[in-house]
Formats: sequence, structure tokens, C-alpha cells
Amino acid sequence: KSPIDVAEYLFTRLQQIGVRSIHGLPGDYNLVALDYIPNLGLKWVGNVNELNAGYAADGYARIKGMSAIVTTFGVGELSTVNAIAGAYSEHVPIVHIVGMPSTASQKDGMLLHHTLGNGNFNVFADMNKEISCAMAKLNDPREAAALIDDTLQKCWIQSRPVYITLPTDMVQKKIEGERLKTPIDLSFPTNDMAREDYVVEVVLKYLQSAKNPIILIDACAIRHRVLEEVHDLIDKTKLPVFVTPMGKGAVNETHPSFGGVYAGDGSQEEVQKRVEASDLILTIGAIKSDFNTAGFTYKTSQLNTIDFHSTHTTVRYSEYPGVSMRGVLRKVIQQVDLSKLSAVPGPKMENKVEENEDKSETITQKWIWPVVGQQFLKKDDIVITETGTANFGIWETKFPAGVTAISQVLWGSIGYSVGALQGACLAARDAGMDRRSILFVGDGSFQLTAQEVSTMIRLGLKPIIFVICNDGFTIERFIHGMDAEYNDIQQWHFKDLVKVFGAKEGTYRTYQIKTKEEVTKLFADKDFNSADVLQFVELYIPKKDAPRGLVLTAEAAAQRNAKE
Amino acid sequence: KSPIDVAEYLFTRLQQIGVRSIHGLPGDYNLVALDYIPNLGLKWVGNVNELNAGYAADGYARIKGMSAIVTTFGVGELSTVNAIAGAYSEHVPIVHIVGMPSTASQKDGMLLHHTLGNGNFNVFADMNKEISCAMAKLNDPREAAALIDDTLQKCWIQSRPVYITLPTDMVQKKIEGERLKTPIDLSFPTNDMAREDYVVEVVLKYLQSAKNPIILIDACAIRHRVLEEVHDLIDKTKLPVFVTPMGKGAVNETHPSFGGVYAGDGSQEEVQKRVEASDLILTIGAIKSDFNTAGFTYKTSQLNTIDFHSTHTTVRYSEYPGVSMRGVLRKVIQQVDLSKLSAVPGPKMENKVEENEDKSETITQKWIWPVVGQQFLKKDDIVITETGTANFGIWETKFPAGVTAISQVLWGSIGYSVGALQGACLAARDAGMDRRSILFVGDGSFQLTAQEVSTMIRLGLKPIIFVICNDGFTIERFIHGMDAEYNDIQQWHFKDLVKVFGAKEGTYRTYQIKTKEEVTKLFADKDFNSADVLQFVELYIPKKDAPRGLVLTAEAAAQRNAKE
Ligand SMILES: Cc1ncc(C[n+]2csc(CCOP(=O)(O)OP(=O)(O)O)c2C)c(N)n1
Ligand SMILES: Cc1ncc(C[n+]2csc(CCOP(=O)(O)OP(=O)(O)O)c2C)c(N)n1
Ligand SMILES: [Mg+2]
Ligand SMILES: [Mg+2]
Repeated sequence: KSPIDVAEYLFTRLQQIGVRSIHGLPGDYNLVALDYIPNLGLKWVGNVNELNAGYAADGYARIKGMSAIVTTFGVGELSTVNAIAGAYSEHVPIVHIVGMPSTASQKDGMLLHHTLGNGNFNVFADMNKEISCAMAKLNDPREAAALIDDTLQKCWIQSRPVYITLPTDMVQKKIEGERLKTPIDLSFPTNDMAREDYVVEVVLKYLQSAKNPIILIDACAIRHRVLEEVHDLIDKTKLPVFVTPMGKGAVNETHPSFGGVYAGDGSQEEVQKRVEASDLILTIGAIKSDFNTAGFTYKTSQLNTIDFHSTHTTVRYSEYPGVSMRGVLRKVIQQVDLSKLSAVPGPKMENKVEENEDKSETITQKWIWPVVGQQFLKKDDIVITETGTANFGIWETKFPAGVTAISQVLWGSIGYSVGALQGACLAARDAGMDRRSILFVGDGSFQLTAQEVSTMIRLGLKPIIFVICNDGFTIERFIHGMDAEYNDIQQWHFKDLVKVFGAKEGTYRTYQIKTKEEVTKLFADKDFNSADVLQFVELYIPKKDAPRGLVLTAEAAAQRNAKE
Repeated sequence: KSPIDVAEYLFTRLQQIGVRSIHGLPGDYNLVALDYIPNLGLKWVGNVNELNAGYAADGYARIKGMSAIVTTFGVGELSTVNAIAGAYSEHVPIVHIVGMPSTASQKDGMLLHHTLGNGNFNVFADMNKEISCAMAKLNDPREAAALIDDTLQKCWIQSRPVYITLPTDMVQKKIEGERLKTPIDLSFPTNDMAREDYVVEVVLKYLQSAKNPIILIDACAIRHRVLEEVHDLIDKTKLPVFVTPMGKGAVNETHPSFGGVYAGDGSQEEVQKRVEASDLILTIGAIKSDFNTAGFTYKTSQLNTIDFHSTHTTVRYSEYPGVSMRGVLRKVIQQVDLSKLSAVPGPKMENKVEENEDKSETITQKWIWPVVGQQFLKKDDIVITETGTANFGIWETKFPAGVTAISQVLWGSIGYSVGALQGACLAARDAGMDRRSILFVGDGSFQLTAQEVSTMIRLGLKPIIFVICNDGFTIERFIHGMDAEYNDIQQWHFKDLVKVFGAKEGTYRTYQIKTKEEVTKLFADKDFNSADVLQFVELYIPKKDAPRGLVLTAEAAAQRNAKE
């Protein structure tokens, strides 16, 4: 009835789901497809390389709900495979569209550029199987629309990457466009009612008989989109609530029930005490990985734990596969009998600036992070931290309301944060949100993906970038090789990159901050805070200074690496 | 008898094979292994990211025979997977060593950083199966030495990447070191004598009865190490010899028999005529890919062709699997009856500067490449060209003797050349060779991997880098989207990067070259030619100017992409 090209169908579907900018790089196998992007009113990002593009898509999805990246066969897609694996690991929904040689060339096994030279066109798709939750090879126009819809639906619902191949000769093939009038069903599947009710009953039984229950929020509460349920649960029950490092930002940290970050021995003392003394911990969306638990140092027991997940619920040692947290939480909120609930108040998180002061003007890790929370961050900021001292330092920062935190505590690929910043900042702009995007990245990590700052400049984005200048890989030093040469890096004049990447006079500001006084002045600076241009800060901290949580986690990692 | 640690064994073997510098990045799963590198007198490169490290290892191997890269599990290895696939595609021997979590952690399926969070520690190794010619998982000290030896041997002999996992708890495990006294056998397997003799006879029959035979040298002659045989064959037979784009550099281009570059319709007229009129073409190591043949425009017939390969020989339509070129060529050289051979002289390649002059001062693609050959290149230079105008322009450059060319005509991953330059330049230094390393890279490609210049600075390397500034992706413009936004790039102040990356005053020179006169002056400049410091040249060429070979190849690619 209304014929439409395959590429138009695909991009229109992405638009319907909320994607406004498409990340990626051109390549001759995707060029014709790229023509559709501006024609549909979408924006082409045009990243500086594909790994950065993948990281950016990850950041974009974490703010805007979902994202898309277009790469070219072989060279492009493999360049970003680490970013896609990271998104799989961390439950981030990215649609990866790969421009492929034509189906005819594939059938003939032609010896084309970007192939292994052996006529096998499936190798790269096969590599993506274990890092995608769904895959669509658009080799046949008759099934293209159904495949696209199914794949995008899985991407959203499972909150993980999907992989779509688009051969050059399929781009302009006509398919029925009527289907576009019905949006893809993105509602989450509901639980089997009887099983759900059973689980709710069990949960309520333990919850209502516990003496000092608490709530612990982790990554999958964010990624599987139950933050509304989380807040309703806190508001209703008034139970003390904590977050893990990966759960940072999930909870309004100015909420009276918010107690701080729990990471086993890496927690602040009062937090650790309260959590580990609790006789019932409701963990929502837990990923109990080494770096999220300060090296598996939880001193909690599964006997005192109820785990809510997107795919199952575990009450003490009883497992309920297929019973997803959304429905269970909703009913627990509705049905909990407050008169039976023992809501013992917990500690309140504060930015502990004074305790961490010393007489020197040297900026220290223990001082800077609470200061960031107290003097700099404001409502609705997006705060991105990189694997390294930043990812552990941020545990000590109490956020204002509405702050979103982005990091890769499980996957931990350095360089990620620079790309993610580009994507997150753009996503906020695409969503019409007035939010500052703020990055804390180590000098070592920054070097891996530095050129993505160029994309930010080209797009006119206005992030605030802090590069922690501490002479190399401090996090690695604390794991092994404190003075080893392999933990050193080349000294760059970091802030001068902005100009070299083509930022025009007046469209950026750079800073070099070496003392506490300079920090305080910077954070009080109105211009700086207004974030009206791209800003780049070199922040100097001594080489062998690391946040407490990192020191502990690093020790545990070194021990585990050595253990037989 | 002489116990030695697994890591020491591995690195010693690499040293024995000629590897002097190890590429890669640290990560906590490989740190302890890295300690062995300086202790054994090897050099740790410490690249700026893993993709660049992989490209660099590729460049290193092409000069030094073999190379090694160490990455960390998941994040590191996947970042470089595109470089490894490229090396597989282009037959380059790289030993990829991945630092893994301990065997104990793997067995327990621990939820560690850099995993997918699902306890599966094999996913990334599996991804490498189709892009490695051998794989060794060093999980057991008893078999470690044998596995290492076998894997390194395959790497060398098949001239393709291998993949080795080294769990943290294996690094220091003791194994028998006596074995190190016997070097790994790197001799190439010989052919079955009877079959070889048979093939030689067939080859000689056709060769000696042909009227105007020629020789065509391609990539695998370089990669599978038969250049000595090639030169002996030319010297003995005096047959005209041509190279394909991927074979560039294989033959001494000042040799009286050298006729130029054959790439179908992309060839210079006299070359195409001579090759296509030939009644017998001996192709050695052919990879007849699209970009190596100006879009499959060979007008030669298989009936007039004998193909020599590392794994087989094909005479017209008769295939001889398992009959490798080395032995066959050696015998053909010995047995050919010169009195029966018709060696009709062919054209002589020249740098056609005058023909490509015009009155304007604008630097053009058709002018610059012969000028490079005539006025700039000298004996034994290493010349690296990137996918883009450079890779096609270089067809028009006649090399002095001893020049090695490096490019990725088949795999064609942009950004490759910058990493490859670092590796090649270091390899030449490691080998004690006094060779200049010269890069021609497009402005678009350079942006993908620009930060590898920082590694060159840190290592004190002295390459000459030409960035072709032509406002973006010219090669793509000629395929599709001449004026499309997606073919534009952010304008950088390219040459200022050198200082920002920390090069000290006096250790580098930068240039901005916008006219023919400036080119000629630069190429006559003694200081510039001496290459005593790192030099960086911005070379301005108009946006819509492309070498002839590229225009043809791009047209063919666009047509093939559209074909159903
Ligand atoms: C892609 C990738 N390569 C290597 C690593 C190993 N690694 C983890 S942290 C780190 C060093 C980070 O240094 P920096 O960014 O300077 O952080 P800081 O000094 O603040 O700790 C390295 C090399 C990794 N996680 N990811
Ligand atoms: C990793 C990777 N991404 C994308 C491509 C597609 N591609 C091939 S050439 C090219 C543009 C190269 O532009 P530039 O380096 O400026 O070369 P020139 O202008 O000299 O043609 C692109 C984007 C690729 N080959 N490899
Ligand atoms: Mg650092
Ligand atoms: Mg260009």
C-alpha cells in the first residue's frame, strides 16, 4: 500500500523509539544508507573512530533510552566490538547496524576489500553472537520489516545490544510501509500471575518480620528501568536505602532515606555497619562483581538477602526463575503492611570535606571527591567517571537530586568515558534537557580516545572535562608495579588539544588546576558553572594517591590474580 | 634441569625469533607478565591504545619478520581485534598474548571485571578462532612449552596471527628450560618431491613455449618470503616483471626488467598493454581483490596464467594443492632453458613528472606521486600509505632500490598506517637499519589513530609524516556522496599535535605545504631529508582531486554495491 525503502523503515523505527542522532562512521558499504539519515530529520554524528562511536552510543543510550551506531563491514564493526561487548556486559541497548557487501557479492564469495580474503562473509557476524541479544541479517526484503521490529523490541526489553546487517543491495529495496503506523510494542512482559503472587507473599513475609531491613540498589535497577518502582518503594516504606558503586545515581541522594554507597570493606564505616547488621537486604538489580564490591568484601549473607532481577527473583536460597522484579516490586509496594514494617533509620550520607582536609595545598583524592559533591555538582548533572581513581573516588561524592552517573564498573574499558561523554551530552541535548555533562577521566585513559573531543567540538556540545593528571596509571600501580615503567605515560599538554582539534576562540575555556585554592575558586566561578562553552580542566593530583576504595579493591585484585 | 617461568619461556622464544620490542598496553591481568620484558632485555612499547598497538605490531612484523602484542582480557584484546583480523587477511605474523584471569577464577566462574558477567571466559578466545592460524591456552604448565613452540612455529610459517592466553597464575609457573637451547624449527615445509617435479615440468613446458611471458608479483610473494626467489627468477630469465598494488616494493624498481604497476584498467597504458598482450603470466603470490585490481578490471585469462601460492600452484585450470611456490620457483630458476625462453623486453617505469605538470601552483594528485618518487624517496626507505588517495596515488611512484612499501589494500582499515608507522620505524631501529620511515596518510584516516604519534615521540622515533589535507574523505566522495556531510571531517591543526603530545623543542619539525614550489623546496631541503628528528608535514591537495586509479576503482565499487 505504501511502499518504503528498507533503510527508511529501519531508521524510522529508530526514530519512533526515541533515537534522534545516529553514531558511527561512513564506509562504502553503508554510504547509501547514510543518505536516509538527514532526509528523515535524524542527525548523523560522524565520530572520529568506531570504538569511540560505540562508547558514545553507549553513553547516548544511558541517557536517551536507546541508541544506534552504523559501521562498515569488517573494519568498522570490529573496531567497535569492544564497545559492544561492554554494552552487553553492562546491559545497555545499542542497535549496531553494519553496512555489508551486496547479497550478490556475498553469494559469489567475491574477494572484496574488508574481507579475510577467504570468501567467508559470516565471520564477523559470528563474532557478535555472544555479545548481542538478537541478530537480524536483512538479506530478504520480505522478512526485513518483521526482523527489524523483532530485533529492536529485544534490544529495548533485554536492554542489550543487537546486531543488524544491511547489505548494499537491500538498502533501497521496497517493503510495505503501513506497518510503521503501529509502533513496536515496547511494554515489558508481565510475570505469570500465580507465580508472581506467590513470590510477593514470600517477600512480604520476610520483609514484615525483619527487624532492620534495608534496600540496596544496583546497576540493573537503572538498566532495566525500575527506578520509579525503587523510589515508590523507598517513599512508602521509609526503609534506609543504599546504592552500590554501579547503582550510583539510581536513587535521589538528597532523599531522607539515602544512606550512602555500600561496597563491602570499601564503604564508609557507618554504611558498612548498618548494611551488614541488617537482617534483611532487599537488593534490586545486583551485579556483585569484584570492582562493585571492593573485591568481594561483602559481609552479608544470602540467608538475609532477597535479590530482585529482571529475569528472576531469589529469596534467600529459593530461586524463582522467570519472575521479574517489576511486577513483584509493584505489588510489594501496594501490599506491604506498614504497621508490621520495622523501618529503623540509617546513616545519612554527607560530603565529608572537613574530615578530609589537611594543611597542604596539594589536591588529594580523599579531599577532591567530597568537594565535588559539596561545591560543584548541581541538580540534574550527568556525571561520568572513568575506570581508575575517578571510578572509586566518586563513591565519596554525595550527589544532588536528579544526577545521573555513568561509568563502566563491570566492563571497565578505559577510554570509554570520553566517548560516553560525547553520547550522553548529545542525548541530553536531543532530549531538550538542560543538564550539564561532566567527565572525570584519568590522564592514562584519556589518551586512548582523546580525539572524541573533536566530535564534541564539531557538534557544539558544552561538556566539562576534568582530566586527572597524576603521571600515569595510578590504579594499576596499586595493583602491581608501583614504579614500573609500564605504568608511566607520555606527558601531554592535555588542555591544548581543544584548540588543535579546531575549537574556535570563544567557544571553549581551559584551566590548569594545581591547588586546593584553585579548585575552590574554580567551583565558585559563575562562568565555569554556567557551562556555556566546552570546558577542559587539567586537575593535578599526586601520582601515588588513590581513593580508599581503590586501594582495597586493588589489593584484592592482586591477590586473586596470584591465587592458584 | 633448568627450571624457568612460563612467561620467561614465552618471551625468550619471541626474542629468539627476532622480536626485540613488545607492543601492547598493561592491564591487571598481564602486569606480572610484563615484569619479564625488561628483565630479558626486551623493550616494552606501551602504546596509547590497543587498536594502535595491533596496527603497530603489524607494521613491526612487516619489517622485522614477526611481532608480539600483549593485551588484557576482554577490553584490551577486543580493542585490537580489528588489527588482528587485518593481519590475518593480509598474512602478517603477529603473536597476540592475552593476560587472562587466573585458572582458578575461571573455574569458579567468578564475576570479574572485563567479563560479560555470565561466567563465560571463552567468548573472546572464540572470537579469535577465525582470525588466528593457531591458538594456545596456557592453562597447564606441563604442556605450556610445547604449545608455545607449536604456536609460534605456525605463526611464522603460515605468516598469520596466533592467539595465546596467559592466565595470571600461570605466569610464574616453573617449566623445564632446557628446551630453549633448541631453537624452534622455522624452516618451511618442503613439497612432496614427485608432485613438485611434476609441476615444475608443466610450468617449464608452458614457460618455454610462450611467446611473450611476463612475471607479476603480488602480496604473498612478500608475506610468504620468496622475494629472493623472485629476484633470482628475474635475474635469470630477464622476463619483464610487474607488481600489483599489494606487491609494490617486492621488486627492485630500478631493475632493468621492472615495468611498473599492473592493476587492470588502473595501470599506466603501456603496462596494461604489455601485460594483457602476454600469452603467459607467472603470478607470484596473487591476491586478486577488488582494490588490488582497480575493481576486477584485469583483462587477462586464466588460460594464460600460472599462479604460484604458498599453499598451492595453479597452472591454467589445473590445480596442484599442497605444492608451495618456494620449491617450485627454485627449481624453475635452476632448470629453465634460457635458449628456449622468449624474453621480450617490456616498458620501463618512470616517474612521470613532466606529463603531469600544469601551470597552477596547486598541488595535484597526479603531480605529487611521481614527484615523491623522483625528488624525495631514497634507497631503503620504508613507505607507508593509507587507504584513501595515498594508496592509489603511490601506484604512480617509482621507488628507488630497497624501498619497502606497507599498506593494507585488502583489509583497508583506515587509521592503520599511523600505528603501522610506529611499528615499522621501531622495527627498523631494532634491526639496526638506517632507513627512513615515511607515511602518507589522509586527514580523515589520521584522525582515527592520531595519538600513536605520541608513542613515536616517547620512543624517540624519527619518522616523516605527511598528512594529506583535503577536507575529508575524498575516496568515499568518489564512491558515493561527493558533497555529503558524512564525508566531511572536523578541521584540525594537525601539525600542532606534535607539541601537544609532548615533543620537546628541537626534537621535531613541522611544515605546512600548500604549493608545488613549497613541495620542491621541501624535497630539496637537506635537513628535511636527513630525518634526524620527527617531522610532520601538512600537505594540501584539493578536496575533489583523486588519483586516476582511485577514480576507476571507486566507480567499480559503487556499481558493485548497487548490483543485485
Ligand atoms: C581498553 C583497556 N586497556 C587497558 C586496561 C587496563 N587498565 C585499567 S585502568 C588503567 C589505567 C588508567 O589510568 P588513568 O586513566 O590515568 O587512571 P588513574 O591514574 O586515575 O588511576 C589501565 C591501563 C583497561 N581497563 N582497558
Ligand atoms: C576503520 C575504518 N572505518 C571506515 C572506513 C571507510 N573508509 C575508507 S576510506 C575512508 C576515508 C579516508 O579519508 P582520508 O584518510 O582523508 O583519505 P583521502 O581523503 O586521501 O581519500 C573511509 C571513511 C574504513 N576503511 N576503515
Ligand atoms: Mg592517571
Ligand atoms: Mg582526506
